[in-house]
Amino acid sequence: MYKAGPYLEQIHLPHDLREKFTVEDLPQVSDELRQYIIDVISEIGNSHFGASLGVVELTVALHYVFNTPEDQLVWDVGHQAYGHKILTGRRERFHTNRIKDGISGFPKRSESEYDTFGVGHSSTSISAALGMAVANRYKKETNKHHIAVIGDGAMTAGMAFEGLNHAGFEKDANLLVILNDNCMSIDPNVGALKEYLTDITTSHTYNKVKDEVWKLLGRISKFGPDAQTIASKISGALKGSILKQSNLFESLNFRYFGPIDGHDVIGVAKILEDLKHIPGPKILHCITKKGAGYKFAEEGNPTQWHAPGIFNKDTGEIVKIVPKSPQPPKYQDVFGHTIVELAEKNEKIMGITPAMPSGCSLNIMMKAMPDRAFDVGIAEQHAVTFSAGLATQGLVPFCNIYSSFMQRAYDQVLHDVALQNLNVVFCLDRGGLVGADGATHHGAYDLAYMRHIPNMIVAAPMNEQELRNMMYTAQLEDKGPFAIRYPRGNGVMTEWKTPFEELSIGKGRRVSNGTDIAIVTIGHPGNFAQAAIDHLKLSGVTVAHYDMRFVKPIDEVLLHEVFTKFKKVITVEDGCLMGGFGSAVIEFMADNQYHAEVVRLGIPDKYINHGTQDELWAECGYDANGIVKTVKTMLHMDQTTQRASGSVGS
Amino acid sequence: MYKAGPYLEQIHLPHDLREKFTVEDLPQVSDELRQYIIDVISEIGNSHFGASLGVVELTVALHYVFNTPEDQLVWDVGHQAYGHKILTGRRERFHTNRIKDGISGFPKRSESEYDTFGVGHSSTSISAALGMAVANRYKKETNKHHIAVIGDGAMTAGMAFEGLNHAGFEKDANLLVILNDNCMSIDPNVGALKEYLTDITTSHTYNKVKDEVWKLLGRISKFGPDAQTIASKISGALKGSILKQSNLFESLNFRYFGPIDGHDVIGVAKILEDLKHIPGPKILHCITKKGAGYKFAEEGNPTQWHAPGIFNKDTGEIVKIVPKSPQPPKYQDVFGHTIVELAEKNEKIMGITPAMPSGCSLNIMMKAMPDRAFDVGIAEQHAVTFSAGLATQGLVPFCNIYSSFMQRAYDQVLHDVALQNLNVVFCLDRGGLVGADGATHHGAYDLAYMRHIPNMIVAAPMNEQELRNMMYTAQLEDKGPFAIRYPRGNGVMTEWKTPFEELSIGKGRRVSNGTDIAIVTIGHPGNFAQAAIDHLKLSGVTVAHYDMRFVKPIDEVLLHEVFTKFKKVITVEDGCLMGGFGSAVIEFMADNQYHAEVVRLGIPDKYINHGTQDELWAECGYDANGIVKTVKTMLHMDQTTQRASGSVGS
Repeated sequence: MYKAGPYLEQIHLPHDLREKFTVEDLPQVSDELRQYIIDVISEIGNSHFGASLGVVELTVALHYVFNTPEDQLVWDVGHQAYGHKILTGRRERFHTNRIKDGISGFPKRSESEYDTFGVGHSSTSISAALGMAVANRYKKETNKHHIAVIGDGAMTAGMAFEGLNHAGFEKDANLLVILNDNCMSIDPNVGALKEYLTDITTSHTYNKVKDEVWKLLGRISKFGPDAQTIASKISGALKGSILKQSNLFESLNFRYFGPIDGHDVIGVAKILEDLKHIPGPKILHCITKKGAGYKFAEEGNPTQWHAPGIFNKDTGEIVKIVPKSPQPPKYQDVFGHTIVELAEKNEKIMGITPAMPSGCSLNIMMKAMPDRAFDVGIAEQHAVTFSAGLATQGLVPFCNIYSSFMQRAYDQVLHDVALQNLNVVFCLDRGGLVGADGATHHGAYDLAYMRHIPNMIVAAPMNEQELRNMMYTAQLEDKGPFAIRYPRGNGVMTEWKTPFEELSIGKGRRVSNGTDIAIVTIGHPGNFAQAAIDHLKLSGVTVAHYDMRFVKPIDEVLLHEVFTKFKKVITVEDGCLMGGFGSAVIEFMADNQYHAEVVRLGIPDKYINHGTQDELWAECGYDANGIVKTVKTMLHMDQTTQRASGSVGS
Repeated sequence: MYKAGPYLEQIHLPHDLREKFTVEDLPQVSDELRQYIIDVISEIGNSHFGASLGVVELTVALHYVFNTPEDQLVWDVGHQAYGHKILTGRRERFHTNRIKDGISGFPKRSESEYDTFGVGHSSTSISAALGMAVANRYKKETNKHHIAVIGDGAMTAGMAFEGLNHAGFEKDANLLVILNDNCMSIDPNVGALKEYLTDITTSHTYNKVKDEVWKLLGRISKFGPDAQTIASKISGALKGSILKQSNLFESLNFRYFGPIDGHDVIGVAKILEDLKHIPGPKILHCITKKGAGYKFAEEGNPTQWHAPGIFNKDTGEIVKIVPKSPQPPKYQDVFGHTIVELAEKNEKIMGITPAMPSGCSLNIMMKAMPDRAFDVGIAEQHAVTFSAGLATQGLVPFCNIYSSFMQRAYDQVLHDVALQNLNVVFCLDRGGLVGADGATHHGAYDLAYMRHIPNMIVAAPMNEQELRNMMYTAQLEDKGPFAIRYPRGNGVMTEWKTPFEELSIGKGRRVSNGTDIAIVTIGHPGNFAQAAIDHLKLSGVTVAHYDMRFVKPIDEVLLHEVFTKFKKVITVEDGCLMGGFGSAVIEFMADNQYHAEVVRLGIPDKYINHGTQDELWAECGYDANGIVKTVKTMLHMDQTTQRASGSVGS
C-alpha cells in the first residue's frame, strides 16, 4: 500500500483536517497530499495528474474552511478532484482510480456524499451550485455555503456564462465561484476571456491600479478647495459608473476578489474565511499552475502532464511501452494526418476543434496550416455553428468533436447545419465505450442522435482505410452534412496510409460469406465480428459478415440480401441499443416485412461505468466472445442448424 | 393586394434603396416600411409583430449602408426580419407569411440569397457571422462585411458568449455585432447582463461619464505643474488598465460603440458607415423599442404584441374569436394551472423556464409563488443543470422547455440529470409539429432523443387528464428523471380539471376493442386514431386502440397482447419515425420474435415546413384521414379481412 505522510495519515475525513490541525499546519498537509498523489499516480498510471497537483492547496484550504459535506463543493469537470477524493475517505482506495470497480476518475454522487455533483463534461458547476444555493435559500438553510471551482478553460463555455448571468440576478444566493486560472484547458486555453484574465493578472493588476488612482486623487485634493471639488467629482464618477463596470464579473453583479496566489495555502484559507461572511454571488480569482509542486510537470509540457501514464517520480521520465512489432495507429492520428493530406489538395478544407487539439490530433493541422485550423475553446455549440458559417461561404469545415461532447451541440447540428443542408463534415472521435473515463465520456448515443437528423449522412469506419476513404469521400463534392464516427484507441492496420478511394454513399460491403447466420456490423466492432467468425469457423459454423459502413443512408440492397438469405441475424454496434444502428436494421426489416430472428448487440439501456475498453465491451456482450456466444445460442435454438450448433459446442 | 407607400413601392431589392434614395429619405422609407408591416400583419394575423417594428430603422439603415447580399447580414432568431424580407424582394409575397407554401416567418437560405443564415432558435448569429468573416478573410475577400443583429435576450444564451469569446480572439475578422437592446425576450429579459445593459444605457451613460472624467482631469491640470503630473498619471492609469477593462464587451476584445438611438435612422446609417472603416470585431449597442412607431404596441403589453394575431390597426383592438361553445384549454395552460395546484400541496415543487414564462404558462406560478418559479433567461443548458442542482437538495423541479429548444440541453439532460438519476421533471411543451413556426420549431425529435437516455421515464398524454395525472404522478415520490411531452395548442376536454389519479409507470391502456387491426398510439395523436376508428366503424371495421402513455418504460404486457392478438399493427406518433416511439414498438416485436405487419406513422425523415398543424399532420399522413387510409390499405392487402376492407371501401 501507499504510505501517507504523518499529517495526511490522520485525515480520514475533512473534519479530521479541521479538528486536528491549525492553519499553520496546512502547508505540511498540502505537501503530503501532493506527495501522495505523485506516489500513487506515478505507479498506477492511467490517470489525470497535472490538474489535481495544481489545486492541492486550494483543496486543503476549502475543506479546512468550509464545513463539507454540509457546505456544497462542486468541482467543475473533475480532473482536479484527486486531492478532494483523498481527503474525503477515499485515500485507501485511491490506487484503484479509474480501474474497473475502483473509484471513478471524476467526482460521483454515488461514490461519496462529498461529491455533491457528478461531473466529467465541463462548465456545469456554476449552474449546479446555484441550484443548490437557491434550494437552500428557499429551505432557509442559510448557513450553507455553495462553492463552484471552475477552470479558466471551462469558463469559456457558454453554459458557464448562462450560470453567471442567472447567479448575478439571484443577489442573495450564497454562491462562491472560484476561478482556478492556470491558463490551460487540457491544451493551452484560447479566446478573448483568457486574454482578459491574463491582462488583469499580469503586470499592474486591476486592483493595484485602482488603489493608485484613489491615492493620486487624494493628493490632488491638496491643491485647494476647487481641486478638492473636482477630485471628488472624479471619484464619484469613477465609483458610480466606470469602476462599477470595470470588471467583467462585476458587470454581471458578482463581487470580484483577487487575483490571489492559489499555492499560498494559508493565504487562500484566510480569504476563504473572509468570503464566508460576504453575502451574495462572489468570485475568487485564484492563480495556479498545472502540475505545481512537481518540478518535472512544472517545467515540462502541461498537455503531456495532463495525463502522463506511468512515470518515474524521481526522474520525471514517462514510461513509454515500446511494442515489439509495429502497431496500428490511433484512429485520432489517422484523422490528424489525413486531414492535412486532404487539405493540401483541397484548399476549401478547414479544421475546427473545441479545445481538444491534442486529443483529436487536429494539432497536426494547426501546426502545418495555422490559418486553416481553429481551436475555438470549450465551446461545442459555437464550434458547430461557426463551421456552418464557414460552409455558407463555400468552405468545407471538418469539425472534430468527441462523441459525448457533441451531445452539447446537438441542437446546432440539427438547426444550423442539417436543416440548411450545409456541407459540414463532423468527425466524432471517441465514439462508443471509451474506457477509463467512464460513464460521462462514453460516446454511446451518437449513432442514435445523428441518424434521426434529416439530411445527415452517418458513417463509421471499420478500420483506418475506411476512415481515410470516408474523409476523402466527404470532401469530394457538396454532400451536405456528413458525420464520421470512430472510436478511442488504435485501429487494426499497421500499413494504414492507403491510397484514397471514393466510397458510394450508403453502400456497405460483404466482408465474408457464410450460410448459417448473418452478422451485420457498423464501425470498429466489425473487427470483433471477424474475430468471432474466425473462431466459429473452427466449429464448422459459417457466418456472412456485412460491414455496413453507413448507418444512414443504410444499404437497403445489402439488407435485402441479408433478410432474403438469412433467418437469423445479429447486429453489432458500439452504441446504444435504443434507437441505434440495430434499430435501423429492424426498422428496415419491419418496413419491408421480413421476419427474421434478430439479436441486437450493443450498449444496453444503462450508464456503463469505467474500466478498460476490453472489459466494457465484454460487459456489454459485443466483444468477440460475446458475439460467439450469441451465435451459438441462436443456432442452438434453431433446429435446422443443429449440425452447426453441435459442432460449435463440441 | 396591399399598397406600399411611394418610396417603398420603388424598392424591389436593396440596391433600389441605395441607388434611388439619399440618407435624408430614410425616415420616409422607414415610415412606409413600418406602415406596410402594420397593414399586412394586422389583417393576416398569425405572425410576429413587435420585434420587426422595433428594428424598422435599423433594417433600412443596414441595407442602405451595406452592400447586401455581398455583405453578409445575419438576423438572430429572426422574429424581427419582416422589414428585411420586404426590402429584399418579398414584399408581394409578404401576405403569405407563415402560411403553407408561403414565405417562412424566419430568414431561410432557401428562400432568398439575402437570408444568409437560417434561424429560429436564438443566439446563433455571432457564431455564424464569425464563420463567414473568417471564411472571407481566408479567401482574401476583405471587402466583405459580416453583421450579426442580436437581441439583448438572445445575448444571454451561452452560445452567444462562446461566439464573442472566439471572435475577440480573431482580431482581424471583419465582424460587426449589433446588439438590439429592447430589454425584451418574448417576455421581459432577465439576468445580470440585462441589468448591466440597462446600467450603461440609462441616466449617465458610461461614455458620458468617461468624457466627463477626462474633462475634469483637464481642469485639474490648471492647478500647476505638480497637479498636471498627477492628473497625467491618473489619465495614464485609467487609459492603460481600468478603462480598457471597463466594458464587458471591451473585456472580450470587442470595440464597443453606443448606446445609440436605434430609431434615428439617419444617425444609425451614419454610424454604420463609420463602422465600415473600423477593422476587427466591434459591437454597436443600439437601443430600440419593441413595437416602436405603432402607439398601441408601444403603450401596450409588449409580450402580447409579440404576436398579437389579427387586430384593428386603427383602434389597436386585438380580434379575439369567441367560440360559441366552451373550448378545451391549451395544454400549456393545463400545465400552468396544474403545477400551481400541485405546488400548493407539495412544498418541494419548483418551476423553471428559460425565457418562456408566457409561452409555457409558468407565468401563472411565477405570479402565485414568486419564490418558487424562475425565469432563467434564454439559457436551456443552465435551466436543466440548475434544476439538477435544486434536485440534489431534495426539491422537485419542474423544468419546462419547448421540445425543440430542449435539443440545446440534451447533454445536460444526459450528463447532469439522468446519469445521476436526479428527480427532475421535464415538461416538454410544443412536442410534435407546431404549425406556423415551421421547421426550426417542430418538436420532432424529443421522443427519440429522450427514450435512449438511461433512467429516463418518457410519457406523453393523450389529453388534459393524462397530462394532469402524469404531473401528479411525477411528484409523488422520487422517480428519477421524468419527461412529460405534450403538443402546442388545445387539448380535447372542456371539463379538464379532473381529480388527480396516480398512474402506474410504464402502463398504457386499451382505449377501444376491435379485431381487425390494432392501433398503438402515444400522446395527443391518440385522438386522431379515435376519430379514425369512429369513421371506420361506419364501414364495419373494428379497431383495437392502445394509448401507451409511456414511451419508456414501454408497457410490455400491453404489447404482448397486441402482438399476440394482431397480425396488423399501426403505430402513431407526433414525432420522428427514425428511432422514435414506433421504433420502440418494433424493437419490442423483434426482441420478442413476434412477426406482425407494422406500419409506423409519424414524421418522416425530412424537415417539415410551416403550415397549420392540421395541414402538417395531414402532410405527414398521421391525421385521422391518414390513419383511415393506412388501415384500409393494410386490410385490403390481407385476404382474411377482405370483408372489412370491402365494407370500408363501399
